[in-house]
Amino acid sequence: MPPVRIDALTTDPARLNALGRAVHDALMETFGFPPDDLFQILTGHDGVRSTLRHGDHLGVHHDDGIVFVGITLRAGHPAQRKRALYRRIAELAQAYAGTEPRNVVITLTENASADWSFGNGVAQYAPAED
Amino acid sequence: MPPVRIDALTTDPARLNALGRAVHDALMETFGFPPDDLFQILTGHDGVRSTLRHGDHLGVHHDDGIVFVGITLRAGHPAQRKRALYRRIAELAQAYAGTEPRNVVITLTENASADWSFGNGVAQYAPAED
Amino acid sequence: MPPVRIDALTTDPARLNALGRAVHDALMETFGFPPDDLFQILTGHDGVRSTLRHGDHLGVHHDDGIVFVGITLRAGHPAQRKRALYRRIAELAQAYAGTEPRNVVITLTENASADWSFGNGVAQYAPAED
Repeated sequence: MPPVRIDALTTDPARLNALGRAVHDALMETFGFPPDDLFQILTGHDGVRSTLRHGDHLGVHHDDGIVFVGITLRAGHPAQRKRALYRRIAELAQAYAGTEPRNVVITLTENASADWSFGNGVAQYAPAED
Repeated sequence: MPPVRIDALTTDPARLNALGRAVHDALMETFGFPPDDLFQILTGHDGVRSTLRHGDHLGVHHDDGIVFVGITLRAGHPAQRKRALYRRIAELAQAYAGTEPRNVVITLTENASADWSFGNGVAQYAPAED
Repeated sequence: MPPVRIDALTTDPARLNALGRAVHDALMETFGFPPDDLFQILTGHDGVRSTLRHGDHLGVHHDDGIVFVGITLRAGHPAQRKRALYRRIAELAQAYAGTEPRNVVITLTENASADWSFGNGVAQYAPAED
């Protein structure tokens, strides 16, 4: 599912890459996405030209180690699977990048099969004519 | 509601911060969001590595002072509240950042309660099992 | 429809601009959007501070020439029109920017009329009171 957007306060490419692997592995494990379904936009903010702001919403304390993960995917996945995804992203972000689970903030946005083109100008999930 | 994305043509961190405060205060005033519901990605584009392009859609004149505000939030808010939000963001962007109201362009995208995790790998708005 | 987000691995402003023109012309031709309906966020990633990751999903080979195009638009456009849009973006990205069609990855996200403000704090597509 493209694109996954990951935004962190960092100037360390290795950390960005580790966060990307965490999200990708979690999507493969919990949603069953294939390894090649990999489309990520990884942005490190330097806190000057661009930055992140955060609060302690719902009592979860965030600091500048915060990571925003935004995933667009087709509608229809059950809430239980989404919860498993959140758990696994938080676990792997800690394992791969040392990010504390409290600092992993995730947002999903859903769309439909006709809303994707993976290249060649084709709607691969909805190729038939109406 | 995370994340709010604000994109402006600027290399001035103070201006970015003022725009962030404008949107956050407007969300608190018109939607009743709590102060700690603060999750923003503030990006200043230098016009070279990254940039913004704009037209005068619907007769509203935009120039390089344009500010894009993208907000993801749960579905269900009435249009009247959204209109109040737009008015207040435009007012506060002018008051805090000197941005002309015509240059404030806002887009909302809606999702559902299960589409959020604010940390700890938990879906705080939809914690129960299905 | 704002904003169109285009992300590419490039430090070349001319290439970014060509990609922006490709998407805008394709939207005008296939969706009939007026020329002034132009709102784009064009980001060139240097591969260090920020980067893109990609796989060969569905057998379409991608490389670092990949371009992510994200378009938010109002719901209601038929799949046939979306397919025409994908074809035309791929054609024009090749014609204007030399991007191979296989490297053009597009995602649409839909919202509603009340979800837009094009300036002045007004919801131009849903101005009436509820």
